[in-house]
Amino acid sequence: MMDPVTFYEQHLSGWMGPVIVYRAVGKYSPAELRRWLTAADRGQVLTVLVGAASGRQPVMTRLAEAYRLYAGLERRPRLGGVLIAERHVVTGAEHHRMQDKQAAGCEFFVSQVCYDLDHTRTVLSDYAYACRDRGIAPRPTVVTLAPCGSAKTLEFMSWLGIDVPRWLRTEILRSDDPLTESYDQCRTNARALIAFCRRLGLPFGINVESLTNRKVEIEASIGLAHEIRCLLDRRAR
Amino acid sequence: MMDPVTFYEQHLSGWMGPVIVYRAVGKYSPAELRRWLTAADRGQVLTVLVGAASGRQPVMTRLAEAYRLYAGLERRPRLGGVLIAERHVVTGAEHHRMQDKQAAGCEFFVSQVCYDLDHTRTVLSDYAYACRDRGIAPRPTVVTLAPCGSAKTLEFMSWLGIDVPRWLRTEILRSDDPLTESYDQCRTNARALIAFCRRLGLPFGINVESLTNRKVEIEASIGLAHEIRCLLDRRAR
Repeated sequence: MMDPVTFYEQHLSGWMGPVIVYRAVGKYSPAELRRWLTAADRGQVLTVLVGAASGRQPVMTRLAEAYRLYAGLERRPRLGGVLIAERHVVTGAEHHRMQDKQAAGCEFFVSQVCYDLDHTRTVLSDYAYACRDRGIAPRPTVVTLAPCGSAKTLEFMSWLGIDVPRWLRTEILRSDDPLTESYDQCRTNARALIAFCRRLGLPFGINVESLTNRKVEIEASIGLAHEIRCLLDRRAR
Repeated sequence: MMDPVTFYEQHLSGWMGPVIVYRAVGKYSPAELRRWLTAADRGQVLTVLVGAASGRQPVMTRLAEAYRLYAGLERRPRLGGVLIAERHVVTGAEHHRMQDKQAAGCEFFVSQVCYDLDHTRTVLSDYAYACRDRGIAPRPTVVTLAPCGSAKTLEFMSWLGIDVPRWLRTEILRSDDPLTESYDQCRTNARALIAFCRRLGLPFGINVESLTNRKVEIEASIGLAHEIRCLLDRRAR
């Protein structure tokens, strides 16, 4: 797989907007990480440091080590953290983890792909109220949505650890048009999340991804991003 | 607590519509149950036989025994069964239980109070598809909604085993107006359930209850029932 930095340097040179570069820190030595962080264009680049997917994976730099390294730099891009609602179901502590990351310099959060709306609302709620109770401002939190066009993509989502309510799994698997099923649910979830975050007073954003390189899923994700842009504009007025 | 039959006989004598009388079968001997079932006015009365809330409760008649007794009667009211989405989360087998009850004479189902929309959709989906796969017609399924006006009612709901997503628990507990919070969510869930059951081709109804005898909760449940009636009429056209 191409390194995100290579992709950014070779294929996005004409792009003038902000760029978020994910760094799977385990793949780099501390020296490599430090070099890239120090050299990154702070006017355009933000970064999200990501830990290993499992404890068994061999790593060159641990996430805690990368955060310490980041904290010691004078020149560095703005930092974001990952938020996983599924982990919150198990530990009930993801909101504490977010606050720790915030204390370590995170200025925003990006969620894993959301299909279980209640799990996502619960972690956002726990985070927002924990910030309120401690008198600190919550950081902008970006929830990720992604259409799912096939049983194969659904399988990949399970492998990624994304919770999908069973009724929706069934609809996607049984439907003649799984992409439309999942697309409709992503739009419904976007509506609910926009209303929820606004009521909660939590600064938020919505990120739309394609989980695969299938053309229909990429096009659906572009369509979904446009629709959500309209939802956000309409309700903001 | 007043026996439902006493309430029906003493306070609903002027009511001409159908009546569903719940029978907690463990409280009666087989002879008492048989006597009431045989005497019930089949033109007006439907019944739901309910088992003990826990295995430790001493019972005069077990649910399986009550179903066998019912099956042997010549004169008997129409029968409905209880459906518990929360049990489905643990066992994954509530839809099989529904099909067994259907084979034993159940002509409809009524759910426990629904606050976890995904859990409810999952059991309805599993039931509808299981019926489709076996070529049998699904029975009408009535989903129960009930507004919750206070922390005390929420506590009672936990005691009843009703799953409430944590973000919603938090909103109810933190809100200055918990009744409106829960009412809004009940209406949102009603909308989602109506659309879901129609797409699924599952015959359905919605039952609105008050969980307590508090006047504000009773009035809210009446208001909710009216609103849901309008939703059903509007979308049916």
